[in-house]
Amino acid sequence: MAAPAPRTDTAPALERDDLNPNVLRAQYAVRGPLVDRAQALEAQGRKIVYCNIGNPQALGQKPITFLRQLLALLEHPALLDEPDAARRFPADVLARARDVLRRHPPGTGAYSQSAGLAFVREAVAKFVERRDGIPADPRRVILTDGASRGIQMVLLALLRSSATGYLCPVPQYPLYSATIALIGGRRVDYALDERRGWQLTEPELERAVAAARREGTEPAAIVVINPGNPTGAVLSPETIAMVVRFAARHRLAILADEVYQENVYAPGKRFVSFARTLHDLSEERVPLFSFHSVSKGYLGECGHRGGYLEHRNVPDDVAQELVKLQSISLCSGLPGQLAVHAMVAPPKPGDESHATWAAEREAILGALREKAEILGRAMRGIPGLHCDTPEGAMYAFVRIELPDTPGVADAERDTAYCLALLEETGVCVVPGSGFGQEPGTLHFRTTFLPPKEQIEDFARRLGEFHRRYVAALGRAGA
Amino acid sequence: MAAPAPRTDTAPALERDDLNPNVLRAQYAVRGPLVDRAQALEAQGRKIVYCNIGNPQALGQKPITFLRQLLALLEHPALLDEPDAARRFPADVLARARDVLRRHPPGTGAYSQSAGLAFVREAVAKFVERRDGIPADPRRVILTDGASRGIQMVLLALLRSSATGYLCPVPQYPLYSATIALIGGRRVDYALDERRGWQLTEPELERAVAAARREGTEPAAIVVINPGNPTGAVLSPETIAMVVRFAARHRLAILADEVYQENVYAPGKRFVSFARTLHDLSEERVPLFSFHSVSKGYLGECGHRGGYLEHRNVPDDVAQELVKLQSISLCSGLPGQLAVHAMVAPPKPGDESHATWAAEREAILGALREKAEILGRAMRGIPGLHCDTPEGAMYAFVRIELPDTPGVADAERDTAYCLALLEETGVCVVPGSGFGQEPGTLHFRTTFLPPKEQIEDFARRLGEFHRRYVAALGRAGA
Repeated sequence: MAAPAPRTDTAPALERDDLNPNVLRAQYAVRGPLVDRAQALEAQGRKIVYCNIGNPQALGQKPITFLRQLLALLEHPALLDEPDAARRFPADVLARARDVLRRHPPGTGAYSQSAGLAFVREAVAKFVERRDGIPADPRRVILTDGASRGIQMVLLALLRSSATGYLCPVPQYPLYSATIALIGGRRVDYALDERRGWQLTEPELERAVAAARREGTEPAAIVVINPGNPTGAVLSPETIAMVVRFAARHRLAILADEVYQENVYAPGKRFVSFARTLHDLSEERVPLFSFHSVSKGYLGECGHRGGYLEHRNVPDDVAQELVKLQSISLCSGLPGQLAVHAMVAPPKPGDESHATWAAEREAILGALREKAEILGRAMRGIPGLHCDTPEGAMYAFVRIELPDTPGVADAERDTAYCLALLEETGVCVVPGSGFGQEPGTLHFRTTFLPPKEQIEDFARRLGEFHRRYVAALGRAGA
Repeated sequence: MAAPAPRTDTAPALERDDLNPNVLRAQYAVRGPLVDRAQALEAQGRKIVYCNIGNPQALGQKPITFLRQLLALLEHPALLDEPDAARRFPADVLARARDVLRRHPPGTGAYSQSAGLAFVREAVAKFVERRDGIPADPRRVILTDGASRGIQMVLLALLRSSATGYLCPVPQYPLYSATIALIGGRRVDYALDERRGWQLTEPELERAVAAARREGTEPAAIVVINPGNPTGAVLSPETIAMVVRFAARHRLAILADEVYQENVYAPGKRFVSFARTLHDLSEERVPLFSFHSVSKGYLGECGHRGGYLEHRNVPDDVAQELVKLQSISLCSGLPGQLAVHAMVAPPKPGDESHATWAAEREAILGALREKAEILGRAMRGIPGLHCDTPEGAMYAFVRIELPDTPGVADAERDTAYCLALLEETGVCVVPGSGFGQEPGTLHFRTTFLPPKEQIEDFARRLGEFHRRYVAALGRAGA
């Protein structure tokens, strides 16, 4: 590291150059300069549609009543004792709240054990057993503040040296690139195949790992996001099995980001977990860290920052180190832990709140399915934009065709496009360069979370914008 | 770093030695093996009194009604619209909940801006202005998951290289030692003076910084915990001014851990903030990061993981990097952010809930004051134990006199003592070695959070235990 420049006595005591170089290097496009500009425009009175981030309730999605009634009772248990409680809350919600308080009397008010409340971890294990039809162990579950904190913890734990590499998809969710930069590790890019619906291919994985090793990088893990963010692609069971075999061959751990597991819309597609695939392959050596969250799915409870990680094929003394890491920040937030409980143990048929819960869930997932189709259809109707209907998740990663502007970097070109789109239409999307894209291609990521009418309106304005923007670039280049 | 040992094909794919060496090095005694043993005993049916951690509501402290009513309404806003809402909730709580939802319609359900909700940050700034009588700027406030996450973020940001040093008190709260180990920085110990009520002295700070520089360490910051954890000491205004001048002289940033600012019990003592002291000294160069939390004080809302950091004398481009770091995990939990709001903007005189709020607050702080005195008096009555009545915070750091056991390390001696205490009395305290202590001295940290009768009972059993333990050691040594 270069020696610090000598400083005069009038210099500020702390300058940007004094900071951790890894911190300066880390980029997080989903909340970058584009969002700053959007907020500035909003402060001036412009109406902004935030399609930059998967934040459903900020765009009008209603919370699931069951979860919120439960949390209200847990925040203020005196409500349980009011004489008309049985009239105001469904019986199963009252029973659940009493049961939670019996198992953890301080409710939301006290730290839990570092790994999270034991009965919530047990409920997570039962959820995995029901979902996948395989055994699961609550001692291999850690409750985290959203999936993000769990992912950061595992990436940090696996950083054996500054040569440690993590295979990450391109495009990827920038939590990975930012965290790997922050901890001083190396990102090893593997490209998803846009021409094949953003699937993951074995030759590309082999190419990536070989290229990394040639540069002295020691790959420790592969990150897979399924369903994909930002691509919306749902991986086939065969692809997942291929990844497991690839990981076994190269002694890699798998980080399976499965936060969109409920968000599968395409006919004939279904979510298959890495846990289930390990089981089916009788694979007992590949370490798996699987992440889930209350922020996505049908709950969309981003503000509660609830999540969990479940690990398999991880020795006890390694698992203990993860719990120690969690203990340094005491534990994840209790409202988030209890939201996880509501996610993994929802009302059962016969429970008073089951019908409402099921109807709300179906309405939310049905609307997302419909909006994915609307967005896909609209994008296909705009000359110069390319995007299949998203199969899952909450995003479309749209390819943009622009006239050549020699000497201008891709990241400048897509950022300029997204900024102009924001200024003209008030819609905030994220440039593809924030996620990574094949050199020479340009994209943006948009969510399909706004109400249907707004998506239709956005698509119309986007078409007009794109035509004008391309024409203006053409004139400038002429 | 040594090359990895060659592995056979039957070795587990991931072993403890494959992990990040900094992760393996990090220790967090407050939740270490002693707590594991306590939980094992509890699982066998033993009654355990957890005095290892400042977790008030786990030990029977009741939550503040105002805060919980507010959070219940925000979790389930349908309660606001019920016809008898005005009968069931105080008018100011209803008005507050409506105001929060007007300013942030998705309530607890959506991510906020990365730095936290703007109106909560404004309320924090007003709180600092009222507390200290000085201007404060909401743009210099970041809402964090408890104080811990804010502290970790600043330590990471200031890590310029592996030679970066952080001056930390001995004894210290192990969040600091653990985080510094995790990020690969260097701890520079300065000793608090046990003979002078654990105060901080200028010659010791100068000694520490000079010793660090001789070893090639580049000190970047000094950590001060006031009121002290684990010592319970409240720093005098003169000492705080001395630290500011010391920091200015050595170009250090100050991390002021002020989470116990409401917990001052000793007559004639009061909390003075570093922010106020900077202002009084017209010190405009020393960067200050001040941390606060909803987990301590009179709220004791550990489970909500709410906190904030306020910084001063930090250039905008540095502040922007902190917001970027926060953005990588999206934002802190919304229930925690809204709990911070309740902390910094409590009911005002004249509000319907003010009288209850004030009475609950006074009862909690009065009980803590009384329990600090009970514990201090009891410790002074046990021959071989030494401890002043804690002036503040929630802890006593008790010195233990034991017969010499040559060849046994201090950390083994105090851990053995605490384990034996746990086995015999069911009380879980933390060995002094987990916090750091002068070589040759032995301590344990205990909270004074359990109910009064339990503290009295604990003190009695501790006296008997200590006598027996010393006698047994004497026999073993004879």
